[in-house]
Amino acid sequence: MPFPDTVPAQQTGILISAAGGPEVLLPATLPVPACGPGEVLIRVACAGVNRHDINQRRRGPDPSHRPVPGLEVSGVVVRTGAQVAGVAAGDEVCALVDGGGYAQYALADAGQVLPVPAAMSLRDAAALPEALFTTVHNFFNVARLAPGESVLIHGGTSGVGTLAIQLLSWLGHRVYTTCGSDAKCAMAEALGAAQAFNYRETAFEQAVLAATGGRGVDVILDMAGPDYGRRNVAALARRGRVVHLAPGGNADIALPLRELMRKEAVVTGSLLRPLPDAEKAEIARWLLARAWPVLGTRIRPQIALRLPLAQAGEAHAALERGDLAGKILLDVQ
Amino acid sequence: MPFPDTVPAQQTGILISAAGGPEVLLPATLPVPACGPGEVLIRVACAGVNRHDINQRRRGPDPSHRPVPGLEVSGVVVRTGAQVAGVAAGDEVCALVDGGGYAQYALADAGQVLPVPAAMSLRDAAALPEALFTTVHNFFNVARLAPGESVLIHGGTSGVGTLAIQLLSWLGHRVYTTCGSDAKCAMAEALGAAQAFNYRETAFEQAVLAATGGRGVDVILDMAGPDYGRRNVAALARRGRVVHLAPGGNADIALPLRELMRKEAVVTGSLLRPLPDAEKAEIARWLLARAWPVLGTRIRPQIALRLPLAQAGEAHAALERGDLAGKILLDVQ
Ligand SMILES: NC(=O)c1ccc[n+]([C@@H]2O[C@H](COP(=O)([O-])OP(=O)(O)OC[C@H]3O[C@@H](n4cnc5c(N)ncnc54)[C@H](OP(=O)(O)O)[C@@H]3O)[C@@H](O)[C@H]2O)c1
Ligand SMILES: NC(=O)c1ccc[n+]([C@@H]2O[C@H](COP(=O)([O-])OP(=O)(O)OC[C@H]3O[C@@H](n4cnc5c(N)ncnc54)[C@H](OP(=O)(O)O)[C@@H]3O)[C@@H](O)[C@H]2O)c1
Repeated sequence: MPFPDTVPAQQTGILISAAGGPEVLLPATLPVPACGPGEVLIRVACAGVNRHDINQRRRGPDPSHRPVPGLEVSGVVVRTGAQVAGVAAGDEVCALVDGGGYAQYALADAGQVLPVPAAMSLRDAAALPEALFTTVHNFFNVARLAPGESVLIHGGTSGVGTLAIQLLSWLGHRVYTTCGSDAKCAMAEALGAAQAFNYRETAFEQAVLAATGGRGVDVILDMAGPDYGRRNVAALARRGRVVHLAPGGNADIALPLRELMRKEAVVTGSLLRPLPDAEKAEIARWLLARAWPVLGTRIRPQIALRLPLAQAGEAHAALERGDLAGKILLDVQ
Repeated sequence: MPFPDTVPAQQTGILISAAGGPEVLLPATLPVPACGPGEVLIRVACAGVNRHDINQRRRGPDPSHRPVPGLEVSGVVVRTGAQVAGVAAGDEVCALVDGGGYAQYALADAGQVLPVPAAMSLRDAAALPEALFTTVHNFFNVARLAPGESVLIHGGTSGVGTLAIQLLSWLGHRVYTTCGSDAKCAMAEALGAAQAFNYRETAFEQAVLAATGGRGVDVILDMAGPDYGRRNVAALARRGRVVHLAPGGNADIALPLRELMRKEAVVTGSLLRPLPDAEKAEIARWLLARAWPVLGTRIRPQIALRLPLAQAGEAHAALERGDLAGKILLDVQ
């Protein structure tokens, strides 16, 4: 079948109609956006659901963001901007998108578009971008993880955690992780973690020190907010780094200053969404070279749940319950 | 005069006789220490007085430290260990010492010994090691200060601050600083600071943002303890680093986690004394190449007060009053 040249003027997407619970997500008829010179338009097959979408929904409509949530999609390219090279209409891709993923058509910056890995399906590829860009940016750009260094990942069975465990252990790093149940710990170890600790029952900092002969780990990825300030520093090796992904409200984090100094420990963090496009494109190139060849074979996204786009609210409710392990995807078409 | 070959068996040094105020510093007759294979023995001309000596005195005798305080000296080499090359008896030097500086003879690791700069006196050279090793380690090793980056130094007229302002502005960095009085601010600006802010009267974070067109500074050197957590992050540029030198008791530091993440800011710190000898030797090589050629001409230590060794207690009291600007030295012989 020749690639269809026609793109409709209108589409169905999910709008954040107000600040609130999952019920504020409503289907709406929206214009299909026009493709800027450096962008591609993707006919969405699947959209990934992320914690950020929930935070955005709770805050409600916000003029600084597209009204449609969704930070990652897989699909087929249907339009490319005048300056785009290396991606063409008809390509099966996955991409990071700056909002707008919960819709039939989504725009992506061409530098953030990657082919569907050879060993993976178009649909599953929607589970890759947000988790992998986040993992690479935080471990390699922000924390400068060096060969042979060890890591601790809080939330090993989150969308980010399940892929981060696999990617980092594939690259030769020893990975420790925390999870909220024994079943999640078992899953994290099956994915490649050297040891997973149930954070509801174990003092993870003691467990990490015991597992590393008292040395501690080199990098900690924290998505638990400000709660672990002192405990993370305790679990760090000399010159270790803690990278925070989740602010957890607007509370301050309390850190033991003398212990931080004694270890020359670093506490830092990042937000992926506002990162400049050029930096995201650099991460995409890294991923294409280092992760893409083994995606679908050595490294597989864990899909916890699939729901049709119209049930985006249920998808949010499921993520908020927190009992799933892995990624939630919305089937769009 | 040929260099005297005899070193006495005993010497006078200042002991921390108990935990307490300046009055616990007492002169005592002590053995002259034997020189290990990688060490040199220095007949001390002058010893520098540092905040660390005061903290050590307040804590009292401690089996993990030499009983004699003092982290830096200038003097003449009288013995060298069997493995020492490049330093010989008779050399006029200054050195970082691991305690023991307040005495007639002090041991130094050979890698931490530097010649007295050509344009400086033997006596003044005692003001250099602690401040310069601290400046280089924290700005270049810990904070990775890059060419063209700007800095904020809290405590611009401290022993560390007076030399750090000069070294960094000589290397082309724009230096902002805070001080506790207008007179100290004037001195800091005379030393090369682009602007000095009186921290008792000015919201320094606002002043720094105003001075940098809203951008903030790249690196902050903090010796004020945990008080400035939020204000330092506010004064930082994107990807800026705060390096803490002073724990200020054992209190935690509170940091605005979301703002830290948004800027990819780094909060870290260090302790110079426990740094491995090999790393201190690397700093010494850096200093010899980059700072030594201009010491005494472009960069001059600021000597606030000189007292004889027997008045070490008065020297401590003067540092604790905090009304001096620059370094306090003890004349030993
Ligand atoms: N800064 C960024 O740019 C960025 C980018 C991507 C993701 N993130 C953040 O990263 C996190 C993961 O994203 P996601 O979409 O995969 O969300 P998610 O599935 O909701 O993951 C949240 C994870 O945090 C774990 N967690 C919560 N409290 C914890 C605690 N006290 N100790 C240890 N782990 C704890 C949970 O573990 P259990 O389920 O085992 O309890 C869960 O695995 C979210 O917080 C998200 O906001 C940030
Ligand atoms: N971590 C390490 O390895 C290391 C090594 C060397 C030095 N240090 C630390 O660095 C500091 C300087 O050492 P030093 O021997 O030169 O001691 P110092 O002369 O006593 O210096 C203390 C400095 O801190 C400044 N300060 C105090 N409170 C402040 C505040 N709230 N805001 C801004 N500045 C403030 C003082 O400024 P004003 O006098 O203007 O009030 C003074 O310049 C000391 O705290 C010392 O412990 C640490």
